[in-house]
Amino acid sequence: MARAQFWYEFASTYSYPAAMRVADLAATRGVALEWRPFLLGPLFFEAGWRDSPFNIYPVKGRYMWRDMERICARLKLPLVRPDPFPQNSLLAARIAISLEGEARADISRRFYAREFGAGGSLCDIDALGALLTEAGLDPEATIAAAQHHANKTRLKIACDDAKALGLPGAPCIVTDDGEVFWGNDRLEEGLDWAIGRR
Amino acid sequence: MARAQFWYEFASTYSYPAAMRVADLAATRGVALEWRPFLLGPLFFEAGWRDSPFNIYPVKGRYMWRDMERICARLKLPLVRPDPFPQNSLLAARIAISLEGEARADISRRFYAREFGAGGSLCDIDALGALLTEAGLDPEATIAAAQHHANKTRLKIACDDAKALGLPGAPCIVTDDGEVFWGNDRLEEGLDWAIGRR
Repeated sequence: MARAQFWYEFASTYSYPAAMRVADLAATRGVALEWRPFLLGPLFFEAGWRDSPFNIYPVKGRYMWRDMERICARLKLPLVRPDPFPQNSLLAARIAISLEGEARADISRRFYAREFGAGGSLCDIDALGALLTEAGLDPEATIAAAQHHANKTRLKIACDDAKALGLPGAPCIVTDDGEVFWGNDRLEEGLDWAIGRR
Repeated sequence: MARAQFWYEFASTYSYPAAMRVADLAATRGVALEWRPFLLGPLFFEAGWRDSPFNIYPVKGRYMWRDMERICARLKLPLVRPDPFPQNSLLAARIAISLEGEARADISRRFYAREFGAGGSLCDIDALGALLTEAGLDPEATIAAAQHHANKTRLKIACDDAKALGLPGAPCIVTDDGEVFWGNDRLEEGLDWAIGRR
Protein backbone atom coordinates (compact mmCIF):
# COMPACT_ATOMS: atom_id res chain seq x y z
CA MET A 1 0.00 0.00 0.00
CA ALA A 2 1.29 3.43 -0.90
CA ARG A 3 2.23 5.60 2.08
CA ALA A 4 2.66 9.28 2.83
CA GLN A 5 3.19 11.52 5.83
CA PHE A 6 1.03 14.51 6.69
CA TRP A 7 3.08 17.06 8.62
CA TYR A 8 1.12 19.72 10.47
CA GLU A 9 1.47 22.39 13.15
CA PHE A 10 -1.48 23.34 15.34
CA ALA A 11 -0.65 27.06 15.17
CA SER A 12 -0.67 26.96 11.36
CA THR A 13 -3.76 28.36 9.68
CA TYR A 14 -3.46 26.44 6.42
CA SER A 15 -2.98 23.21 8.39
CA TYR A 16 -6.61 23.56 9.53
CA PRO A 17 -8.37 23.03 6.17
CA ALA A 18 -5.63 20.54 5.26
CA ALA A 19 -6.32 18.45 8.38
CA MET A 20 -10.01 18.46 7.58
CA ARG A 21 -9.46 17.35 3.97
CA VAL A 22 -6.46 15.06 3.97
CA ALA A 23 -7.95 11.81 5.29
CA ASP A 24 -10.54 11.62 2.50
CA LEU A 25 -7.98 12.56 -0.13
CA ALA A 26 -5.65 9.80 1.08
CA ALA A 27 -8.42 7.21 1.33
CA THR A 28 -9.64 7.98 -2.21
CA ARG A 29 -6.14 7.21 -3.51
CA GLY A 30 -5.53 4.20 -1.28
CA VAL A 31 -2.68 5.96 0.52
CA ALA A 32 -1.91 5.00 4.13
CA LEU A 33 -1.38 8.31 5.87
CA GLU A 34 0.81 8.91 8.90
CA TRP A 35 -0.13 12.07 10.83
CA ARG A 36 3.00 13.88 12.00
CA PRO A 37 2.50 16.83 14.33
CA PHE A 38 5.48 19.11 14.80
CA LEU A 39 6.38 22.64 15.84
CA LEU A 40 7.39 25.33 13.37
CA GLY A 41 8.80 27.52 16.15
CA PRO A 42 12.27 25.95 16.23
CA LEU A 43 12.52 26.13 12.42
CA PHE A 44 11.31 29.74 12.31
CA PHE A 45 13.70 30.62 15.14
CA GLU A 46 16.61 29.48 12.96
CA ALA A 47 15.30 31.69 10.14
CA GLY A 48 15.39 34.63 12.55
CA TRP A 49 11.62 34.88 13.08
CA ARG A 50 10.39 35.39 16.63
CA ASP A 51 6.73 35.54 15.62
CA SER A 52 4.56 34.17 12.82
CA PRO A 53 5.74 35.44 9.42
CA PHE A 54 2.08 36.41 8.95
CA ASN A 55 2.46 38.88 11.80
CA ILE A 56 5.96 40.03 10.87
CA TYR A 57 4.90 40.72 7.28
CA PRO A 58 1.42 42.31 7.46
CA VAL A 59 0.88 42.16 3.68
CA LYS A 60 1.28 38.40 3.79
CA GLY A 61 -0.89 38.21 6.89
CA ARG A 62 -3.76 40.15 5.34
CA TYR A 63 -3.56 38.02 2.21
CA MET A 64 -3.51 34.79 4.22
CA TRP A 65 -6.59 35.63 6.28
CA ARG A 66 -8.63 36.58 3.20
CA ASP A 67 -7.38 33.43 1.47
CA MET A 68 -8.40 31.37 4.50
CA GLU A 69 -11.88 32.93 4.40
CA ARG A 70 -12.30 31.87 0.77
CA ILE A 71 -10.91 28.38 1.38
CA CYS A 72 -13.08 27.73 4.43
CA ALA A 73 -16.18 29.13 2.69
CA ARG A 74 -15.62 26.73 -0.20
CA LEU A 75 -15.12 23.79 2.17
CA LYS A 76 -18.05 24.92 4.36
CA LEU A 77 -15.71 25.05 7.36
CA PRO A 78 -16.30 27.69 10.04
CA LEU A 79 -13.44 30.14 10.52
CA VAL A 80 -12.93 32.24 13.65
CA ARG A 81 -9.53 33.82 14.26
CA PRO A 82 -8.02 32.78 17.57
CA ASP A 83 -6.72 35.60 19.74
CA PRO A 84 -3.80 35.78 20.13
CA PHE A 85 -2.56 34.48 16.82
CA PRO A 86 -0.57 32.35 16.61
CA GLN A 87 -1.68 30.17 19.50
CA ASN A 88 0.94 28.40 21.60
CA SER A 89 0.62 24.90 20.18
CA LEU A 90 3.00 23.04 22.47
CA LEU A 91 0.45 21.24 24.65
CA ALA A 92 -1.74 20.30 21.68
CA ALA A 93 1.26 18.93 19.79
CA ARG A 94 2.41 16.91 22.81
CA ILE A 95 -1.05 15.41 23.24
CA ALA A 96 -1.36 14.56 19.54
CA ILE A 97 2.06 12.94 19.30
CA SER A 98 1.39 10.88 22.44
CA LEU A 99 -1.48 9.17 20.63
CA GLU A 100 -1.27 6.76 17.71
CA GLY A 101 -3.04 6.18 14.42
CA GLU A 102 -6.67 7.19 14.14
CA ALA A 103 -6.78 8.56 17.70
CA ARG A 104 -4.08 11.05 16.76
CA ALA A 105 -5.89 12.11 13.59
CA ASP A 106 -9.20 12.39 15.41
CA ILE A 107 -7.94 14.56 18.27
CA SER A 108 -5.98 16.71 15.82
CA ARG A 109 -9.16 17.54 13.91
CA ARG A 110 -10.93 18.32 17.20
CA PHE A 111 -8.12 20.68 18.23
CA TYR A 112 -8.25 22.47 14.87
CA ALA A 113 -12.05 22.73 15.03
CA ARG A 114 -11.73 24.41 18.43
CA GLU A 115 -8.89 26.72 17.45
CA PHE A 116 -9.83 27.94 13.97
CA GLY A 117 -13.45 26.78 13.75
CA ALA A 118 -14.44 28.43 17.05
CA GLY A 119 -11.50 30.75 17.83
CA GLY A 120 -10.78 28.86 21.05
CA SER A 121 -7.52 28.79 22.96
CA LEU A 122 -5.14 25.87 22.56
CA CYS A 123 -3.57 26.62 25.94
CA ASP A 124 -6.69 25.91 28.00
CA ILE A 125 -5.88 22.53 29.50
CA ASP A 126 -9.46 21.99 30.70
CA ALA A 127 -10.86 22.70 27.24
CA LEU A 128 -8.39 20.29 25.64
CA GLY A 129 -9.30 17.75 28.32
CA ALA A 130 -12.98 18.10 27.41
CA LEU A 131 -12.10 17.37 23.77
CA LEU A 132 -10.18 14.28 24.88
CA THR A 133 -13.27 13.12 26.76
CA GLU A 134 -15.42 13.69 23.67
CA ALA A 135 -12.93 11.59 21.73
CA GLY A 136 -13.41 8.73 24.22
CA LEU A 137 -10.06 9.18 25.94
CA ASP A 138 -9.18 9.65 29.60
CA PRO A 139 -8.15 13.31 29.80
CA GLU A 140 -6.03 13.11 32.95
CA ALA A 141 -4.10 10.03 31.90
CA THR A 142 -3.64 11.34 28.35
CA ILE A 143 -2.37 14.75 29.44
CA ALA A 144 -0.04 13.14 32.00
CA ALA A 145 1.38 10.90 29.27
CA ALA A 146 1.69 13.89 26.93
CA GLN A 147 3.74 15.78 29.49
CA HIS A 148 5.98 12.84 30.31
CA HIS A 149 9.65 13.38 29.57
CA ALA A 150 9.77 10.61 26.97
CA ASN A 151 6.89 12.16 25.04
CA LYS A 152 8.45 15.62 25.12
CA THR A 153 11.55 14.04 23.61
CA ARG A 154 9.40 12.39 20.95
CA LEU A 155 8.13 15.80 19.85
CA LYS A 156 11.66 17.23 19.85
CA ILE A 157 12.75 14.39 17.57
CA ALA A 158 9.81 15.12 15.24
CA CYS A 159 11.01 18.73 14.99
CA ASP A 160 14.52 17.48 14.19
CA ASP A 161 13.02 15.21 11.52
CA ALA A 162 11.12 18.17 10.06
CA LYS A 163 14.33 20.14 9.89
CA ALA A 164 16.20 17.24 8.28
CA LEU A 165 13.44 16.90 5.67
CA GLY A 166 13.76 20.62 4.91
CA LEU A 167 10.12 21.40 5.55
CA PRO A 168 9.60 25.08 4.63
CA GLY A 169 6.37 25.41 6.60
CA ALA A 170 3.14 23.58 7.33
CA PRO A 171 1.21 21.66 6.25
CA CYS A 172 3.31 19.31 4.12
CA ILE A 173 2.87 15.97 2.45
CA VAL A 174 6.11 13.95 2.48
CA THR A 175 6.42 10.84 0.35
CA ASP A 176 8.56 7.75 0.92
CA ASP A 177 11.07 8.97 -1.69
CA GLY A 178 11.58 12.19 0.27
CA GLU A 179 9.53 14.59 -1.85
CA VAL A 180 7.97 17.48 0.05
CA PHE A 181 4.75 19.20 -1.01
CA TRP A 182 4.03 22.33 0.98
CA GLY A 183 0.60 23.82 1.46
CA ASN A 184 -3.04 23.00 1.80
CA ASP A 185 -3.29 23.56 -1.95
CA ARG A 186 -0.70 20.86 -2.68
CA LEU A 187 -2.17 17.92 -0.76
CA GLU A 188 -3.62 16.36 -3.91
CA GLU A 189 -0.34 16.65 -5.78
CA GLY A 190 1.64 15.09 -2.93
CA LEU A 191 -0.77 12.19 -2.50
CA ASP A 192 -0.83 11.67 -6.27
CA TRP A 193 2.96 11.48 -6.20
CA ALA A 194 2.75 8.82 -3.46
CA ILE A 195 0.81 6.54 -5.82
CA GLY A 196 3.07 7.26 -8.78
CA ARG A 197 0.68 9.65 -10.51
CA ARG A 198 2.85 12.53 -11.68
CA MET B 1 -16.85 39.33 -20.90
CA ALA B 2 -15.31 38.38 -17.57
CA ARG B 3 -11.95 40.01 -16.91
CA ALA B 4 -8.94 39.38 -14.72
CA GLN B 5 -5.42 40.72 -14.28
CA PHE B 6 -2.31 38.58 -14.32
CA TRP B 7 0.41 40.21 -12.22
CA TYR B 8 3.94 38.93 -12.75
CA GLU B 9 7.56 39.78 -12.05
CA PHE B 10 10.30 38.65 -14.42
CA ALA B 11 12.65 37.72 -11.57
CA SER B 12 10.02 35.45 -10.02
CA THR B 13 10.47 31.74 -10.58
CA TYR B 14 6.84 30.72 -10.15
CA SER B 15 5.80 33.47 -12.57
CA TYR B 16 7.54 31.47 -15.33
CA PRO B 17 5.23 28.40 -15.43
CA ALA B 18 2.32 30.73 -14.67
CA ALA B 19 3.10 32.91 -17.69
CA MET B 20 3.31 29.82 -19.87
CA ARG B 21 -0.05 28.46 -18.64
CA VAL B 22 -2.25 31.44 -17.97
CA ALA B 23 -3.36 32.42 -21.48
CA ASP B 24 -4.85 28.98 -22.17
CA LEU B 25 -6.50 28.86 -18.75
CA ALA B 26 -8.11 32.26 -19.33
CA ALA B 27 -9.21 31.44 -22.87
CA THR B 28 -10.82 28.18 -21.74
CA ARG B 29 -12.93 30.15 -19.27
CA GLY B 30 -13.67 33.06 -21.61
CA VAL B 31 -11.77 35.48 -19.37
CA ALA B 32 -10.17 38.56 -20.95
CA LEU B 33 -6.75 38.72 -19.33
CA GLU B 34 -4.70 41.84 -18.76
CA TRP B 35 -0.98 41.15 -18.33
CA ARG B 36 0.47 43.39 -15.60
CA PRO B 37 4.24 43.30 -15.17
CA PHE B 38 5.56 44.82 -11.98
CA LEU B 39 8.59 44.75 -9.70
CA LEU B 40 8.63 42.96 -6.37
CA GLY B 41 11.78 44.78 -5.28
CA PRO B 42 10.03 47.87 -3.88
CA LEU B 43 7.53 45.70 -1.98
CA PHE B 44 10.23 43.41 -0.61
CA PHE B 45 12.31 46.45 0.34
CA GLU B 46 9.46 47.63 2.57
CA ALA B 47 9.34 44.18 4.17
CA GLY B 48 13.04 44.57 5.00
CA TRP B 49 14.33 42.17 2.36
CA ARG B 50 17.36 43.23 0.34
CA ASP B 51 17.48 39.97 -1.64
CA SER B 52 15.05 37.28 -2.77
CA PRO B 53 13.42 35.59 0.24
CA PHE B 54 14.50 32.36 -1.47
CA ASN B 55 18.12 33.41 -0.94
CA ILE B 56 17.59 34.90 2.51
CA TYR B 57 15.84 31.72 3.73
CA PRO B 58 17.77 28.78 2.23
CA VAL B 59 15.21 26.18 3.37
CA LYS B 60 12.53 27.96 1.35
CA GLY B 61 14.96 28.36 -1.55
CA ARG B 62 15.83 24.65 -1.68
CA TYR B 63 12.17 23.73 -1.51
CA MET B 64 11.25 26.20 -4.25
CA TRP B 65 13.86 24.94 -6.72
CA ARG B 66 12.84 21.31 -6.24
CA ASP B 67 9.19 22.33 -6.54
CA MET B 68 9.99 24.21 -9.76
CA GLU B 69 11.73 21.11 -11.14
CA ARG B 70 8.59 19.05 -10.53
CA ILE B 71 6.26 21.72 -11.93
CA CYS B 72 8.32 22.24 -15.07
CA ALA B 73 8.74 18.48 -15.63
CA ARG B 74 4.97 18.05 -15.46
CA LEU B 75 4.40 20.94 -17.88
CA LYS B 76 7.28 19.77 -20.10
CA LEU B 77 8.94 23.16 -19.71
CA PRO B 78 12.74 23.36 -19.67
CA LEU B 79 14.24 24.74 -16.45
CA VAL B 80 17.74 26.18 -16.17
CA ARG B 81 18.58 28.36 -13.18
CA PRO B 82 19.80 31.82 -14.18
CA ASP B 83 23.01 32.95 -12.51
CA PRO B 84 22.83 35.18 -10.58
CA PHE B 85 19.41 34.56 -9.12
CA PRO B 86 17.36 36.64 -8.96
CA GLN B 87 18.00 38.42 -12.23
CA ASN B 88 17.65 42.19 -12.39
CA SER B 89 14.28 42.43 -14.11
CA LEU B 90 14.06 46.20 -14.55
CA LEU B 91 14.77 46.40 -18.29
CA ALA B 92 12.54 43.43 -19.10
CA ALA B 93 9.68 44.92 -17.07
CA ARG B 94 10.08 48.30 -18.76
CA ILE B 95 9.99 46.71 -22.20
CA ALA B 96 6.95 44.58 -21.37
CA ILE B 97 4.96 47.46 -19.90
CA SER B 98 5.76 49.65 -22.91
CA LEU B 99 3.90 47.19 -25.14
CA GLU B 100 0.18 46.50 -25.19
CA GLY B 101 -2.12 43.50 -25.36
CA GLU B 102 -0.86 40.39 -27.09
CA ALA B 103 2.53 41.94 -27.87
CA ARG B 104 3.12 42.33 -24.13
CA ALA B 105 2.07 38.75 -23.39
CA ASP B 106 4.17 37.39 -26.25
CA ILE B 107 7.39 39.19 -25.28
CA SER B 108 6.86 38.28 -21.64
CA ARG B 109 6.77 34.58 -22.52
CA ARG B 110 9.93 35.02 -24.63
CA PHE B 111 11.73 36.71 -21.75
CA TYR B 112 10.73 33.93 -19.34
CA ALA B 113 11.77 31.25 -21.84
CA ARG B 114 15.20 32.88 -22.05
CA GLU B 115 15.60 33.41 -18.33
CA PHE B 116 14.30 30.19 -16.78
CA GLY B 117 14.04 27.94 -19.84
CA ALA B 118 17.64 28.60 -20.92
CA GLY B 119 19.23 30.26 -17.86
CA GLY B 120 19.96 33.43 -19.86
CA SER B 121 20.55 36.90 -18.47
CA LEU B 122 17.72 39.45 -18.45
CA CYS B 123 20.25 42.31 -18.36
CA ASP B 124 21.77 41.61 -21.78
CA ILE B 125 20.25 44.37 -23.89
CA ASP B 126 21.39 42.76 -27.15
CA ALA B 127 19.83 39.43 -26.22
CA LEU B 128 16.54 41.11 -25.30
CA GLY B 129 16.75 43.04 -28.56
CA ALA B 130 17.10 39.78 -30.48
CA LEU B 131 13.95 38.49 -28.77
CA LEU B 132 12.13 41.67 -29.79
CA THR B 133 13.22 41.06 -33.40
CA GLU B 134 11.95 37.47 -33.20
CA ALA B 135 8.65 38.87 -31.93
CA GLY B 136 8.40 41.09 -35.02
CA LEU B 137 9.22 44.32 -33.20
CA ASP B 138 11.86 46.95 -33.87
CA PRO B 139 14.39 46.43 -31.07
CA GLU B 140 15.96 49.88 -31.07
CA ALA B 141 12.69 51.78 -31.15
CA THR B 142 11.10 49.48 -28.56
CA ILE B 143 14.00 49.75 -26.12
CA ALA B 144 14.14 53.53 -26.57
CA ALA B 145 10.43 53.75 -25.79
CA ALA B 146 10.88 51.42 -22.81
CA GLN B 147 13.55 53.68 -21.36
CA HIS B 148 11.60 56.85 -21.93
CA HIS B 149 10.73 58.80 -18.80
CA ALA B 150 6.99 58.38 -19.27
CA ASN B 151 7.35 54.61 -19.50
CA LYS B 152 9.53 54.44 -16.41
CA THR B 153 6.78 56.32 -14.60
CA ARG B 154 4.24 53.83 -15.93
CA LEU B 155 6.15 50.99 -14.29
CA LYS B 156 6.45 52.92 -11.03
CA ILE B 157 2.68 53.41 -11.03
CA ALA B 158 2.21 49.66 -11.61
CA CYS B 159 4.35 49.00 -8.53
CA ASP B 160 2.21 51.45 -6.53
CA ASP B 161 -0.90 49.66 -7.79
CA ALA B 162 0.57 46.31 -6.70
CA LYS B 163 1.21 47.73 -3.26
CA ALA B 164 -2.31 49.18 -3.05
CA LEU B 165 -3.77 45.81 -4.03
CA GLY B 166 -1.73 44.14 -1.27
CA LEU B 167 0.00 41.67 -3.56
CA PRO B 168 2.06 39.38 -1.31
CA GLY B 169 4.29 38.15 -4.13
CA ALA B 170 4.14 36.99 -7.74
CA PRO B 171 2.42 35.72 -9.76
CA CYS B 172 -1.10 36.82 -8.82
CA ILE B 173 -4.51 36.76 -10.42
CA VAL B 174 -6.55 39.82 -9.44
CA THR B 175 -10.26 39.94 -10.20
CA ASP B 176 -12.48 42.97 -10.82
CA ASP B 177 -13.90 42.71 -7.29
CA GLY B 178 -10.39 43.01 -5.84
CA GLU B 179 -9.74 39.39 -4.91
CA VAL B 180 -6.09 38.34 -5.04
CA PHE B 181 -4.96 34.78 -5.73
CA TRP B 182 -1.25 34.30 -5.21
CA GLY B 183 0.82 31.61 -6.85
CA ASN B 184 1.18 29.55 -9.97
CA ASP B 185 -0.91 26.91 -8.23
CA ARG B 186 -3.82 29.32 -7.76
CA LEU B 187 -4.31 30.54 -11.33
CA GLU B 188 -7.25 28.23 -11.92
CA GLU B 189 -8.97 29.30 -8.72
CA GLY B 190 -8.54 32.99 -9.52
CA LEU B 191 -9.80 32.64 -13.06
CA ASP B 192 -12.72 30.54 -11.83
CA TRP B 193 -13.57 33.32 -9.38
CA ALA B 194 -13.55 35.83 -12.28
CA ILE B 195 -16.37 33.90 -13.96
CA GLY B 196 -18.33 33.43 -10.74
CA ARG B 197 -17.32 29.80 -10.20
CA ARG B 198 -16.54 29.51 -6.49
